[in-house]
Amino acid sequence: MNYDPGDLIKIKTKDKVYKGIYIPQKGNSLVIKLESGYNIGIDKKKIKKIDLVKKHKKTKKKTKEIKQNKKLPTISILHTGGTIASKVDYRTGAVHAEFSPEELLKMFPELKDIANIKSRLIFQMFSEDMEPEHWEILAKEVKKEIKKKVDGIIITHGTDTMHYTSAALSFMLQNLPVPLLLVGAQRSSDRGSSDASLNLINASYFISKTNFRGIAICMHENTEDTSCLILPGTKTRKMHTSRRDAFKPINDVPIAKVDYKKKLIENIKKIKENKEKFKSSISFEKNIALIKIRPGFSYKELEFYKNYKGIIFEGTGLGHLAVSVLDKHTKEHKKTLEMIKKLSKKMPIFMTSQCIFGRVDMNVYSSGRDLQEGGVVPLEDMLPETAYVKLGWLLSFEKNQEKIKELMLKNIAGEITERTQANEFL
Amino acid sequence: MNYDPGDLIKIKTKDKVYKGIYIPQKGNSLVIKLESGYNIGIDKKKIKKIDLVKKHKKTKKKTKEIKQNKKLPTISILHTGGTIASKVDYRTGAVHAEFSPEELLKMFPELKDIANIKSRLIFQMFSEDMEPEHWEILAKEVKKEIKKKVDGIIITHGTDTMHYTSAALSFMLQNLPVPLLLVGAQRSSDRGSSDASLNLINASYFISKTNFRGIAICMHENTEDTSCLILPGTKTRKMHTSRRDAFKPINDVPIAKVDYKKKLIENIKKIKENKEKFKSSISFEKNIALIKIRPGFSYKELEFYKNYKGIIFEGTGLGHLAVSVLDKHTKEHKKTLEMIKKLSKKMPIFMTSQCIFGRVDMNVYSSGRDLQEGGVVPLEDMLPETAYVKLGWLLSFEKNQEKIKELMLKNIAGEITERTQANEFL
Repeated sequence: MNYDPGDLIKIKTKDKVYKGIYIPQKGNSLVIKLESGYNIGIDKKKIKKIDLVKKHKKTKKKTKEIKQNKKLPTISILHTGGTIASKVDYRTGAVHAEFSPEELLKMFPELKDIANIKSRLIFQMFSEDMEPEHWEILAKEVKKEIKKKVDGIIITHGTDTMHYTSAALSFMLQNLPVPLLLVGAQRSSDRGSSDASLNLINASYFISKTNFRGIAICMHENTEDTSCLILPGTKTRKMHTSRRDAFKPINDVPIAKVDYKKKLIENIKKIKENKEKFKSSISFEKNIALIKIRPGFSYKELEFYKNYKGIIFEGTGLGHLAVSVLDKHTKEHKKTLEMIKKLSKKMPIFMTSQCIFGRVDMNVYSSGRDLQEGGVVPLEDMLPETAYVKLGWLLSFEKNQEKIKELMLKNIAGEITERTQANEFL
Repeated sequence: MNYDPGDLIKIKTKDKVYKGIYIPQKGNSLVIKLESGYNIGIDKKKIKKIDLVKKHKKTKKKTKEIKQNKKLPTISILHTGGTIASKVDYRTGAVHAEFSPEELLKMFPELKDIANIKSRLIFQMFSEDMEPEHWEILAKEVKKEIKKKVDGIIITHGTDTMHYTSAALSFMLQNLPVPLLLVGAQRSSDRGSSDASLNLINASYFISKTNFRGIAICMHENTEDTSCLILPGTKTRKMHTSRRDAFKPINDVPIAKVDYKKKLIENIKKIKENKEKFKSSISFEKNIALIKIRPGFSYKELEFYKNYKGIIFEGTGLGHLAVSVLDKHTKEHKKTLEMIKKLSKKMPIFMTSQCIFGRVDMNVYSSGRDLQEGGVVPLEDMLPETAYVKLGWLLSFEKNQEKIKELMLKNIAGEITERTQANEFL
């Protein structure tokens, strides 16, 4: 092979010619990054010819010392990987550690007028590969930064599971003395339409100016490249596979809107003063399930989880699943209810809704009441993903079942909105 | 007990007094319907006293013959139950068969100027209890109505799984010669804020005036009680637990907007003439799974499905799940990929996204490519619920795996939108 990672190459197959940057990958496909920013894999067997168009130039690493500006706050950026860091990942092959403060300031020069930037690489992974153990590591790294008395923390993160991580950190680290923002990108930094820069700069600007303390997500407000939203850590969800404004608050409003170019921070929620002492409880019980209900769901699927420690259902509508026996096609429903009763004696079982928006209410219809009598506890307007994370966290240190049910229904990190007249149908 | 179903009663507990309509229910709670329309269950042990406030008056059934107006089209209403029929269900206890054409016209007198109404009770069940067998029965009943040459069909249906049923009917019954609308209600007919009436009348009005042929859902456009949307049968989802405008089109636009009071029908999609012959294929293979991925997902959960006939994944982001081994916490990911490879030799496996909105794209990142090499087929912008229904339907008559993969990616009933420049990020 006469080409290296980062080289611009031209690939000829029988019918087509592809031009793009070579990305080394195992497997039967040769992968290049097209000019559009998307990657394409071409079956190696179908390749007729490969030409080198332009050799990749390795930029020399100049470690110019960055001067600290004492008037500016200090922000610590913890990198975990994902699309926001993919410029480095793709262009240069696998040289991960280049995401240094120097490199960052070269990529995003606006940052140096906003804050003194410190930066550390924690992981280099796409977020779909993150496990609860990574949440624990990340929480411990955040604690270290807090001890160093930084003014704020940014975690760069893949977008796939960013809302799971933000929920996990929200429970593991309570009453944070600084703002912590998770920032991702839906388009990699080497694409014209990348949202990495705006999300990162707006996050830094927000941290430098706000009184907000706690954990939130900072992502595009809309498809225009102007403002970002600061979104609640336990009530946000990735609601689109590819749009830059994929992250939406669910059953809640954004904390604030930020547009650094206009020097604008608009608080949407009233920012409460944090008087409680910072506390951490960093552990997670992985033996828990998140089960999405559907027509055709069988009690046998439920039986599989009999040795688990807890279950979150993603029921239909107001929090239902099939438990009524009405005709010959619903006979198995009896077994489902029996199985739930059996399991609920051994582990806590909770209900959320696959509608995503709205609040569960298991008092309206008979199946909801049957399920409650069977031991299932409805979780108000909590997101299924947040409920899953909260349960795994609680079970890792609390063994009393009644206490767990009580704590699941207690608002700890903004995950439950109290039902009021005004938000009855929220 | 000196009270009957439907009686207005007053219940005294130690601290509170409740007033509402008595609904007979098994279990340890006494259930009443409050004036707000919501039901409440009161622990029988805590009840101190029950007083009868007002005896329920049984309305005598007058079977006045309905005159057919030959100028009006004929609409057949097939009842399956759910909130839209709950006036009968709750007030009178369990007298289900009262939902006759006479009763309907008494409840919704507007209907008689729109169409000649025929009506049959197919099921009396909440939709969370529906099984794929009920979809089959319903499809056969629709076929009977078509043979009778009615001008349109309405299916009243619980809202919980209405979008699963509409998808199932869309595959089982193709090139329908008449419009078929599924209609539900989020608030029961005996509540002031009920949406039952508007949804049913707008559906009838739309059927009486439209050239649309096929299967769709008719529900409130917004929280005002004016217009309804006609929503695509395979691209609609219940997106709120309780709001009247809970049903939203996903990766698609509504077919039309209807407001019968204004005599308005606004076609949003171009209505295509249906030249193909009506065909039906009414069967379903229940041994299929819909698996939602999450951090902490284990290959052992996947192993449980080894004797199933097919799997739909609800992956993260563009269609991912954890398959990369990066550190000691991701070692199990190797087993996940191995398990997928093993299962995909025996059954077809497909990928959709838990983001709900947007299109999966498994060529952008390495885990997507690894999964594709492992046999997972990405399903474009198809909804997870629709993909599940389509797979069960296909597997019930097609055994060839390659053919199934081909048909899953072929747009049969509007379930896939072709990717174009204009909708690249849709």
